[in-house]
Amino acid sequence: MTLPTLGLVGLGKIARDQHIPAIAATGLFELAAVVSPDCATADGIMGGVPSFRSQAEMLAALPGLDAVALCTPPAVRHGLTVEALRAGCHVLIEKPPAATLSELHDLAAEAESARCTLFTAWHSQFNPAVEETRRRLADATIRSVAITWKEDVRRWHPGQDWIFAAGGFGVFDPGINALSILTDILPAPVFVRAADLHVPANRDTPIAATLEMGAAPGSRIGRITADFDFLQQGEQTWSIVIETAAGRLDLTHGGTRLLVDGVPVLAEPDTEYQRIYRHFHRLVTDGASDVDGRPLSLVADACMVGRWHRTDSFDW
Amino acid sequence: MTLPTLGLVGLGKIARDQHIPAIAATGLFELAAVVSPDCATADGIMGGVPSFRSQAEMLAALPGLDAVALCTPPAVRHGLTVEALRAGCHVLIEKPPAATLSELHDLAAEAESARCTLFTAWHSQFNPAVEETRRRLADATIRSVAITWKEDVRRWHPGQDWIFAAGGFGVFDPGINALSILTDILPAPVFVRAADLHVPANRDTPIAATLEMGAAPGSRIGRITADFDFLQQGEQTWSIVIETAAGRLDLTHGGTRLLVDGVPVLAEPDTEYQRIYRHFHRLVTDGASDVDGRPLSLVADACMVGRWHRTDSFDW
Repeated sequence: MTLPTLGLVGLGKIARDQHIPAIAATGLFELAAVVSPDCATADGIMGGVPSFRSQAEMLAALPGLDAVALCTPPAVRHGLTVEALRAGCHVLIEKPPAATLSELHDLAAEAESARCTLFTAWHSQFNPAVEETRRRLADATIRSVAITWKEDVRRWHPGQDWIFAAGGFGVFDPGINALSILTDILPAPVFVRAADLHVPANRDTPIAATLEMGAAPGSRIGRITADFDFLQQGEQTWSIVIETAAGRLDLTHGGTRLLVDGVPVLAEPDTEYQRIYRHFHRLVTDGASDVDGRPLSLVADACMVGRWHRTDSFDW
Repeated sequence: MTLPTLGLVGLGKIARDQHIPAIAATGLFELAAVVSPDCATADGIMGGVPSFRSQAEMLAALPGLDAVALCTPPAVRHGLTVEALRAGCHVLIEKPPAATLSELHDLAAEAESARCTLFTAWHSQFNPAVEETRRRLADATIRSVAITWKEDVRRWHPGQDWIFAAGGFGVFDPGINALSILTDILPAPVFVRAADLHVPANRDTPIAATLEMGAAPGSRIGRITADFDFLQQGEQTWSIVIETAAGRLDLTHGGTRLLVDGVPVLAEPDTEYQRIYRHFHRLVTDGASDVDGRPLSLVADACMVGRWHRTDSFDW
């Protein structure tokens, strides 16, 4: 049986560290082409795989291409996704799936009219520990949820000015991973009640943020808070602590480890991207889509109801 | 035939100026109760109609109530709508229908599971001139759309501090009316590309904003701009100028008048709230809902991708 062919668009860190190894490890798609404005880079990384300078060139050269995985910055994802869907390709989009909610709604409609699969891949949702946490919370009385997501932007996004440009999400770029886990594990919808957003004097997106959230009345879910920081020195923290009537859950290391009342229950190696490609393949086979706008809604809501504060300038 | 009964929740300016006269003029609902924290006010305005201090009291006293119209500030609409839907009431919500998009999505789901009508009433959409503009733009090549929405907050919202508190929308409170017309008249979805938001030093929401928008590729729609100002002295402006390949449309006076190449085509008296109650009655009769999240998405998107600027303090 021939594998569906896939073009990888954008060859940044996430494409090289995660997508290419996961495509190889799962063996469900044939990597048929890569797209990078800098062809020399693409040739250097990919050896035998054809490389193109733009998605349009790739689509023209490979009219039978089955699928595209988009790993570009969010600002250009809407246009590229529309282009790929209209060429009849199934599309997997890295998180966040679009620059705005209006774009994301439009993409869902475009995928439907193109009869193609659209998959908004929130990678943090694809950890076994996240799934196990969801299972344990399904019928729980949840007293509180505290998200702490603190990392050093200089270490994880060195020199990436786009992240602090308008539309670049700032600290919400990692923070939205926590929110994608939150909406996935809780048995009821979550709402932003208030937020404080701290924006460097010389930048346009937050470098730190705190959110107060809550769930609908009658949902047996108490206070939900998030503390996002992009200037964390030393130990990096990506954890969610959930206090339930039956005990405490610690989902740590970005959703890869689960402790129940302090006792480790799950700690699997990081295979989230393999699970993502398996899910994408299943969606394509089933003719289905998986479009999850909840994490992006929470960020937009936080920006809309939040208080904006100016803080110290940030330079690399 | 007995009319469906309706409870009016919130007795502010919009309820008194628009809802009560429209309910009387259309004669499709029986105004069965009003809710106001200040009962004396309610008694003074409504004479014979029973008044309650909270919606919960009203729902307990009138278990057969058919419908509720919510005219409270946006921050409390989600909780009140859920309460009314769970009591089996159809709900009409004043604009904006919720404080956040997550709340609005939840309300749509609640209405579906309660099998009740939910109607997010964007009143500016209910003008004959708006409908006529939509008809004329259906197949047009649209070169540009320029929204100018400039009014004096001291005149229209005197002393209403909530509008400048976090979550109060600021200049987007009137501006969202323009956006609700925009999404209604254009034949393709609209996206925010960039925004500048000007927030007074002593407040938390914008007092002025400019938006750069666009539509999907292939939609024959050019540049779309919006200029919102809350400090307009003298003449107040609520206009949308649309340049098409076939000529120019001026939708003025908040969407109530239409000029085609400078010639008045439609100028009807302001009957939008009568049309709103007719539409609500039809939805209830048909067992349908009308939930339009597009204007709120555009505001949230503008806040997420926008540049925030501090401007002079604002005092009444």
